[in-house]
Amino acid sequence: MIVVSNRGPFRFARNDDGTFSAHRGSGGVVSALMPLLANREDATWVAAAIGEDDRAAVLAGTPTPTGGVHAKLLALDPTTSRLHYDVVSNGVLWFLHHGLFDLARRPRFDRRFREAWEGYVSVNRSFADAVIDGAPEGETVLVQDYQLALVPQMLAQGRPDLHVVHFTHTPFCGPSSVRVLPEYVAHSLCSSMASCTTGFHTERWARAFRASAHEVLGEDAGVGPTFAASFGPDPAVLAAEIATPEVDAEIAALEARVGDRQLIVRSDRMELSKNIVRGFQAYDLLLEEHEKLRERVVFAALLNPSRESLPEYLAYRNEVEQAAARVNERWATSDWEPVILDQRDNYARSLAGLVRSDVLLVNPVRDGLNLIALEGPLANRRDGVLCLSREAGAHDELHHACLTVQPFDVVQTAAALHEALVMSAAERGTRAAELRTLAQANPPAAWLETQLRQARG
Amino acid sequence: MIVVSNRGPFRFARNDDGTFSAHRGSGGVVSALMPLLANREDATWVAAAIGEDDRAAVLAGTPTPTGGVHAKLLALDPTTSRLHYDVVSNGVLWFLHHGLFDLARRPRFDRRFREAWEGYVSVNRSFADAVIDGAPEGETVLVQDYQLALVPQMLAQGRPDLHVVHFTHTPFCGPSSVRVLPEYVAHSLCSSMASCTTGFHTERWARAFRASAHEVLGEDAGVGPTFAASFGPDPAVLAAEIATPEVDAEIAALEARVGDRQLIVRSDRMELSKNIVRGFQAYDLLLEEHEKLRERVVFAALLNPSRESLPEYLAYRNEVEQAAARVNERWATSDWEPVILDQRDNYARSLAGLVRSDVLLVNPVRDGLNLIALEGPLANRRDGVLCLSREAGAHDELHHACLTVQPFDVVQTAAALHEALVMSAAERGTRAAELRTLAQANPPAAWLETQLRQARG
Repeated sequence: MIVVSNRGPFRFARNDDGTFSAHRGSGGVVSALMPLLANREDATWVAAAIGEDDRAAVLAGTPTPTGGVHAKLLALDPTTSRLHYDVVSNGVLWFLHHGLFDLARRPRFDRRFREAWEGYVSVNRSFADAVIDGAPEGETVLVQDYQLALVPQMLAQGRPDLHVVHFTHTPFCGPSSVRVLPEYVAHSLCSSMASCTTGFHTERWARAFRASAHEVLGEDAGVGPTFAASFGPDPAVLAAEIATPEVDAEIAALEARVGDRQLIVRSDRMELSKNIVRGFQAYDLLLEEHEKLRERVVFAALLNPSRESLPEYLAYRNEVEQAAARVNERWATSDWEPVILDQRDNYARSLAGLVRSDVLLVNPVRDGLNLIALEGPLANRRDGVLCLSREAGAHDELHHACLTVQPFDVVQTAAALHEALVMSAAERGTRAAELRTLAQANPPAAWLETQLRQARG
Repeated sequence: MIVVSNRGPFRFARNDDGTFSAHRGSGGVVSALMPLLANREDATWVAAAIGEDDRAAVLAGTPTPTGGVHAKLLALDPTTSRLHYDVVSNGVLWFLHHGLFDLARRPRFDRRFREAWEGYVSVNRSFADAVIDGAPEGETVLVQDYQLALVPQMLAQGRPDLHVVHFTHTPFCGPSSVRVLPEYVAHSLCSSMASCTTGFHTERWARAFRASAHEVLGEDAGVGPTFAASFGPDPAVLAAEIATPEVDAEIAALEARVGDRQLIVRSDRMELSKNIVRGFQAYDLLLEEHEKLRERVVFAALLNPSRESLPEYLAYRNEVEQAAARVNERWATSDWEPVILDQRDNYARSLAGLVRSDVLLVNPVRDGLNLIALEGPLANRRDGVLCLSREAGAHDELHHACLTVQPFDVVQTAAALHEALVMSAAERGTRAAELRTLAQANPPAAWLETQLRQARG
């Protein structure tokens, strides 16, 4: 099989002597697929060389690490990559699929965007050409995510012998949102994805894709089969990641700050779709309404830096910092800090938060799946309660065991947090056990098998 | 029949001697229905007394004007009315149905919103009670628009003998947007509208309503019949409004400023959904790309003040003023002002613009119908070209005769404006004639008859 994704299984870093060392790449798709594809002779992973060191390593012909994945990294033009990744993928398609546009103002498709779109097409062309040139006859090709939505149609034209699946890890926008795109963009994206079998984390996004494709291509247009298949963390991999001195140290540091108080945790990228500000507003309302909780609870927001090349993300970070500061200014006492805002890029810290939390708040405005909602229950050691947005794909699987959050309703969110904090030990135990079962129900291996089976139709 | 709408057929103004004079109300629904309901003994119009003078006139028992519509005006509590109208109707439902929320930030459903929602319910209750108390057995009731979406279910419960239609003049949001509302709101709105026959300006909004109702109420929920029926201006009424000295004076004033240049006109409320800023950006690009047009064209933006009690509207007005100023700063010469920004609340001025325009730009991001797109061709005397957004309901009827605008794509919008400005006289004539025919195809009387017929099922 050939896996095609923008991010690859490793990143290279330049050593002092001019050689390069490989490190594992980051992100949910990489974490899920790495262990499955390692040491498989029949699997190739095509990905972009992301940064300068990656490009230099590829151009220098650095071999991929032994015992790892057979990878082909593409040394793309940096300017074209930026147009593809920052402007079109993250600046437009991400916002579109997550419903984040402030439509009176954005998007504005101007001449600069038309050039960026050419960059998007060009990068998709490079990925497609790498597959067209290298794939054995009749091979199965698993194309990942919205950055590479044009690859399926390019493959259908250049190599009709291949079996192609495209899997989307984000939500997919509905038919009134897809009309926001210029027609040349909407038509290219929908006709490409309609040319193959497409997968989504939930039936909700699959349905939205089909409706959008028919909106753009016409009611009678042929649209390839769709399927819904999500994946959770690999429990063994997650357990191994937690059983490290770094995580132990972070747990100890957190315990020292929290003491015997109850701990609400959120763990996210600093990302507009994650709804971080309303989370603080709900917590503020919780403290206002429940005097008994003051000094008895801490909210740790563990937020990794994200997409800081986009001005929207820097603006949102300011709003998040202000919202956190407002809560602390309003409620803090001499020995109680109600909100801990931790913006380090530190995976051990994030895992420690999941381990120690009494309540995990996952309240995105929209989310393709949300892996944290599945990792949290597996990592947690305190029968923690999951407060989960009904707009996250994971909610479809977990809704019986979590407390449901309506992400735009801070009154309802505050009530869910309160219910979680006062829940009896017995109910916490029952729910936590169910969450653990559900979180293990779809291991990455099964998800990969589903894609392979769907590709063969 | 009983017509129920928030705005009524007249407004009262207090005279110096303490008595009240009645003046015709404003708005598309009022203009359409007034001539049809006047002098009809079998018609009653239930509406709110909007301002202080209206309330005072109603409380003083002022009779409605003779020869007019038999109206029942409700003197609602001003605070409750503000919650109903500003906070819920204009601040939430308008934004929702037009897709205007910046979801990372707004809406935020807090405790203040819960109180406002009670105000919305209470005002709907007042309207419903007025009908329940006054309607003859088996009467037909035509409820108008999103401000009164709960009235149908209240009538179904209180007076099951009545025949009720609810007609929506805005777009209706789709199923992923309706999930933004708190569940108690979404459920109340959808179940009420599903309890009667509902009308919309186009099948697109009817389809969106049905999908939203099933999303909220369940796939198997019963949803009443829907129908699509739009209306255009009454040609005779419009002609009479134009044939006045005030309009002549405004035409002369406009001619003096524009001279022999080509004139692009837009005529809108100062409203986020109207997409005024991108219109100026497209015009700026037009002047940049076509040197020959400089000094040869003027863009008159005729913008009535709107909803200035909402901070979003004041912020948007600033952005509009800045965008207009940028074009003038960039291109103006000693005897050419590229943009005329006219913010007077002056109907004669707006009609004069429609009469004199060579190109009418109507580029909303979303619009239930857009009456200007239908009035413009009837008022115009120069075979003017209509550049119309495909997101306006009127586009469904006019798309063969207008030039289609993709409202988010300023490159495409600039190209449409250019095509309009250089179009041959022959093609302009053909298109203008077709537009006039289409604009007269659905007079208000036919629209009213459709509602009455649908109510009787």
